[in-house]
Amino acid sequence: MPFFPVSFEELIDRFAALPGIGRKSAQRLAFHVLAMPEGEAEAFAETILTARRSVHTCPVCQNLTDGEVCPVCADERRDRSVICVVAEPRDVASLERSREYRGVYHVLHGVLSPMSHVGPDDIRVAELVKRVAAGGVEEVIMATNPDTEGDATAMYIARLLKPFEVKVTRLAYGIPVGSNLEFTDDATLARALEGRREL
Amino acid sequence: MPFFPVSFEELIDRFAALPGIGRKSAQRLAFHVLAMPEGEAEAFAETILTARRSVHTCPVCQNLTDGEVCPVCADERRDRSVICVVAEPRDVASLERSREYRGVYHVLHGVLSPMSHVGPDDIRVAELVKRVAAGGVEEVIMATNPDTEGDATAMYIARLLKPFEVKVTRLAYGIPVGSNLEFTDDATLARALEGRREL
Repeated sequence: MPFFPVSFEELIDRFAALPGIGRKSAQRLAFHVLAMPEGEAEAFAETILTARRSVHTCPVCQNLTDGEVCPVCADERRDRSVICVVAEPRDVASLERSREYRGVYHVLHGVLSPMSHVGPDDIRVAELVKRVAAGGVEEVIMATNPDTEGDATAMYIARLLKPFEVKVTRLAYGIPVGSNLEFTDDATLARALEGRREL
Repeated sequence: MPFFPVSFEELIDRFAALPGIGRKSAQRLAFHVLAMPEGEAEAFAETILTARRSVHTCPVCQNLTDGEVCPVCADERRDRSVICVVAEPRDVASLERSREYRGVYHVLHGVLSPMSHVGPDDIRVAELVKRVAAGGVEEVIMATNPDTEGDATAMYIARLLKPFEVKVTRLAYGIPVGSNLEFTDDATLARALEGRREL
């Protein structure tokens, strides 16, 4: 016999299926939804749908956007001769917060990881090579996380871009090794951008 | 300048507004929603709406239900002469899990708390008195949490029910004092029901 109404149990299940949410937290969230004014619950549901439907990747840099191209690619003042390559969209947010960078981005949506069967075809490497091949790019900054997979991905892409004679640099190890781009403070990120070195 | 598309930032805000979800977790949840198949995102949104719209309180015991009355009140085999009074719907779930109890429930939706300005009119006390006044009730088991507010609420209701000459009992202190009904294990709950004593 279910202890809660079916639709309520279903809501608990939905929350519990989200990453990092256990059964007890899911129950608490579901109770919170019940206690919401109906308009707020509707807005919550609507936001989920709108975000899922309208957000897609920018055809230029592969970052998330709900416009034709992302705000960075659309910005005339950004320097198109420098491309900063990151693993995830959230890394763009981190770098933008440092206010140090005026170039454009390329989001790989992952890093090479033989252990998890992620190869070059599973991340947006081909799109980056195409951008560089199109010309006008002077420097590619590899800003993947400073861990084994991030380093390997950076080395792989550096080798791949060799024929195009662009400068390929790596963020300086101002970022504590083994840590995560996402959790690095703005000052450290700014330092890392400043001290970048050629690969 | 926003770092993410507006609808995506909105989704992060919605998640961050939920209890116990910080900004970083909200971002992770929002990314998870983006990565969902569209059908799953739709089902998630739909579940929120359905739960919020169809779940209401049972007119008899005030527990959550999506039917006319709750499953316990609808069950012919439950003993209507015993009412177990709990603070929250989740406490009904906890007691049902112990499989020790065959009576019906009354959910107060809160406890008396002068510090938080919660008085008798803010919780479902009047509905309980009405049920007892209607007759046929032999025992009322106070199963509020064994803390100051839970004890005070139990004492208050016991006094309120005195004129009706029903037996008012309190769950035995098998439950560790200062703890929470929600997190009590089934065996302890069964013991507490067994050893209940008259107030």
